[in-house]
Amino acid sequence: MRIIPALFILIVFSTTAQDINKLADKHIQDNGVQIIQDFKTLLSIPNVAYDLPNINKNAAHIIKELKKRNVETKLLRMVGTPPIVYGYYPVEGATRTLAFYVHYDGQPADKTNWTHDPWEPTYYSGPMNDGGTPIKFPESYQEINEDHRIYARSAGDDKAPVITILTALDMIQTNELDVTSNLVFFFEGQEEAGSDQLHQYLSDNRELVDEIDLWLFCDGPIHQSRKPQLVFGVRGVTGMEITTYGPNRPLHSGHYGNWAPVPGQLLSELIASMKDEEGNVIIDGFYDDVEPLSELEKQAMANIPLIDEDLKQELGINNPEGTESYNERLLRPSLTIKGLSSGNTGKLARNVVPATATAAIGMRLVKGCDPEKQKDMVEAHILKQGFHIVREDPDQETRMKYPKIAKVTRSGGYPAARTSMDLPIIQDVIERSRDVAGDDLILLPTLGGSLPLYLFTDELNKPAIILPIANHDNNQHAPDENIRIGNLWYGIKLMSALMTMEE
Amino acid sequence: MRIIPALFILIVFSTTAQDINKLADKHIQDNGVQIIQDFKTLLSIPNVAYDLPNINKNAAHIIKELKKRNVETKLLRMVGTPPIVYGYYPVEGATRTLAFYVHYDGQPADKTNWTHDPWEPTYYSGPMNDGGTPIKFPESYQEINEDHRIYARSAGDDKAPVITILTALDMIQTNELDVTSNLVFFFEGQEEAGSDQLHQYLSDNRELVDEIDLWLFCDGPIHQSRKPQLVFGVRGVTGMEITTYGPNRPLHSGHYGNWAPVPGQLLSELIASMKDEEGNVIIDGFYDDVEPLSELEKQAMANIPLIDEDLKQELGINNPEGTESYNERLLRPSLTIKGLSSGNTGKLARNVVPATATAAIGMRLVKGCDPEKQKDMVEAHILKQGFHIVREDPDQETRMKYPKIAKVTRSGGYPAARTSMDLPIIQDVIERSRDVAGDDLILLPTLGGSLPLYLFTDELNKPAIILPIANHDNNQHAPDENIRIGNLWYGIKLMSALMTMEE
Repeated sequence: MRIIPALFILIVFSTTAQDINKLADKHIQDNGVQIIQDFKTLLSIPNVAYDLPNINKNAAHIIKELKKRNVETKLLRMVGTPPIVYGYYPVEGATRTLAFYVHYDGQPADKTNWTHDPWEPTYYSGPMNDGGTPIKFPESYQEINEDHRIYARSAGDDKAPVITILTALDMIQTNELDVTSNLVFFFEGQEEAGSDQLHQYLSDNRELVDEIDLWLFCDGPIHQSRKPQLVFGVRGVTGMEITTYGPNRPLHSGHYGNWAPVPGQLLSELIASMKDEEGNVIIDGFYDDVEPLSELEKQAMANIPLIDEDLKQELGINNPEGTESYNERLLRPSLTIKGLSSGNTGKLARNVVPATATAAIGMRLVKGCDPEKQKDMVEAHILKQGFHIVREDPDQETRMKYPKIAKVTRSGGYPAARTSMDLPIIQDVIERSRDVAGDDLILLPTLGGSLPLYLFTDELNKPAIILPIANHDNNQHAPDENIRIGNLWYGIKLMSALMTMEE
Repeated sequence: MRIIPALFILIVFSTTAQDINKLADKHIQDNGVQIIQDFKTLLSIPNVAYDLPNINKNAAHIIKELKKRNVETKLLRMVGTPPIVYGYYPVEGATRTLAFYVHYDGQPADKTNWTHDPWEPTYYSGPMNDGGTPIKFPESYQEINEDHRIYARSAGDDKAPVITILTALDMIQTNELDVTSNLVFFFEGQEEAGSDQLHQYLSDNRELVDEIDLWLFCDGPIHQSRKPQLVFGVRGVTGMEITTYGPNRPLHSGHYGNWAPVPGQLLSELIASMKDEEGNVIIDGFYDDVEPLSELEKQAMANIPLIDEDLKQELGINNPEGTESYNERLLRPSLTIKGLSSGNTGKLARNVVPATATAAIGMRLVKGCDPEKQKDMVEAHILKQGFHIVREDPDQETRMKYPKIAKVTRSGGYPAARTSMDLPIIQDVIERSRDVAGDDLILLPTLGGSLPLYLFTDELNKPAIILPIANHDNNQHAPDENIRIGNLWYGIKLMSALMTMEE
């Protein structure tokens, strides 16, 4: 307790990044037991998006906690949907506004696959699958180890940022530090259910979000190499189903085999024509719209650890698609056969020429690629392979007219988003995050996965980056989700640093 | 009634084929009502192979009917399997033995899909799907029309030959005609269940079958053109399943799409490599072992009506595989993608890179092709495409060693069978059948479908041909199976002719 007054005096006059880190460490030491208890309370409220009574309890709890910390709050509601917890923390004289996006809902959980009840947080001495055992929640800071874990649904995805933000506010207020930007808290309750109303919520509340200068998406895990990271984009997503046609009903493969067209053969030939031997897409134009990286982003790429050999071992892969590294491959649009079906295989296989064969094709998009244009390219390729394209199963006239027919059912989807590392505000965030994370900090141009970040970057036209804090092995979306205590501490320090970063 | 004595006198001295046809017609006129009643009785006994109590009732009924006609009978039994009704009708001085194979069991029937109970035979004025209506069973020959139908399970497949054989014996005995060959009746009770014990039954009873000179398989429908036919062979059947491998577990298609190998892509490329653009198999050697047709068989081929245009219209096909006619295509081995599966399509499709993709491949074989050798060729092709072949899912070491892995699971199967049209005994059968059927009679070198005829042609080393009598639209294996009365009459005349054919 004796050093606090001295530090306090220091920061009043000149609070360096190092000072704030130290104050955050001190705050964690003084309050670690309580932080963990508060997190346990938050994790105990079931939070599946369709369970509106419990979702509302989560929202109410978070609102109460924000209010305690002098945040102006508002519950944004649309009938029958999880509300958005909106918080505003104005700072006199601040010239910019940072928004912290978090989602307080979690993936549904099948309790039978979990070791403990997903909403009865359980404290572990380490990872369950590596010798960790359940121990009692700590009662003193000395009992806490950074490798301890809390197992509970949303421990990593995505309630951890809630507790770290609340704790950062506590730390700042306890130490009377200056918050340097207006802060917006935007806590969504239906991300895991697809964020179907997010677009509407944003349109209906433009006045609440228009002044925001930077969106910080507090979600996802740190890098697979266990190093902290900032992520500047996500891939977009779209897709289509393609059905090819044989006879108008399944035929006896003896009476008609070798004469009736085989839809699985036609589909295979079509799919095979889409990639070269190395796994690169050879559909005309498929890679043409990819927006190149800046020099800064190329440098950042060069500093990302290569995880290819680890991934190959972990996933039993000898020969990945393409000739570039995993990191580079994520900067290209993808085309994946997510599913194939025709007739039956295995015990149910019958001696038929099936009537149809269907492929579900998933496509990931990178910055520059338009979802509709990308699908148009695939359709142009299908035409080029001699297929007639239909939108419904073909009628007899259509069947008799065309030698090869493909039904194409396009999915919706959305574009990729990527915020430039070159923007001054982003440079500030990078610098401040590095103060917390050290030189190990990875700057990742894009995740392989998709989030509707375009709503912010393209529709609201604001920069948006992702700040992951959860451990890479947090089992998000899976049973036995967990957070490593050290990652919680990292989050508190990162939030504290960004809330107080200088312009 | 008045003409019978005159005819009778005639045949005692010189019974021509025409005479026998006329006598058979007369017998049908005199006994048509009773024949239909007797057939109704036979069709009323449920006859699914696994229903042993009823199967035994069928066998007992048929034995009783054979005995009535002075046939020496024997029930060949193996515990827990449907028995074979064996009948022997020795003829003094006969120098050859003809065997009539029939199966008295029928396909299982889901009553809910039938218009009437499958084992309550119902008499119709015509085909149900073309204006036919249920009418009472005829009480005089004048009430019978050749286009009438009896609807019941096995009406076409395969009890019709039983009643026609019994009636032919009646006709011959009533008219005191000379049977010219020793006759064997070999009525199987498990054909629709796969004839699993047929091989064993034949080995265990070699003394009963060794003297047979020609097997006549009374089964199947007449030609799609509605013309009668003799069929000289069947295609063999075999197949395999091929599984290709991506990552060792399904992966997020965003985080790994464009890097992880996609098993559905690999499988499609492999399948595409097996055929050319016209649908011909381009696996090395695939067509090499095909035994060519004799001149006589080529002539027969030229006389088979082309049904291609009808089939194309009926099945909604613009572009069949290959450039030859349907008839010619059946004389080639086939390779058909019977099934494809990987991940999911439709509503269940998920954004994954699946771990595996599987194709079920069906192969039909023609005379000359060995089932094992044909599968070896496919495996050689798989190797040539750069795959390592495994028999079980690959372990980690195997996964890390080979860029492309395919698991091949071979099915059993059996070879094709084809009896030469050039054999003297076959020439006799053709001639005698033409007396009944007229010049329309089609001589079909092979069916597209498969039956284990090789047990007779290759293992017993005897010629074997198929004598179909059922109408082409008898709905065999389907609900509302039926027989056209005219086809029953055709069968009676054909059986009568063959039992009395001269050497």
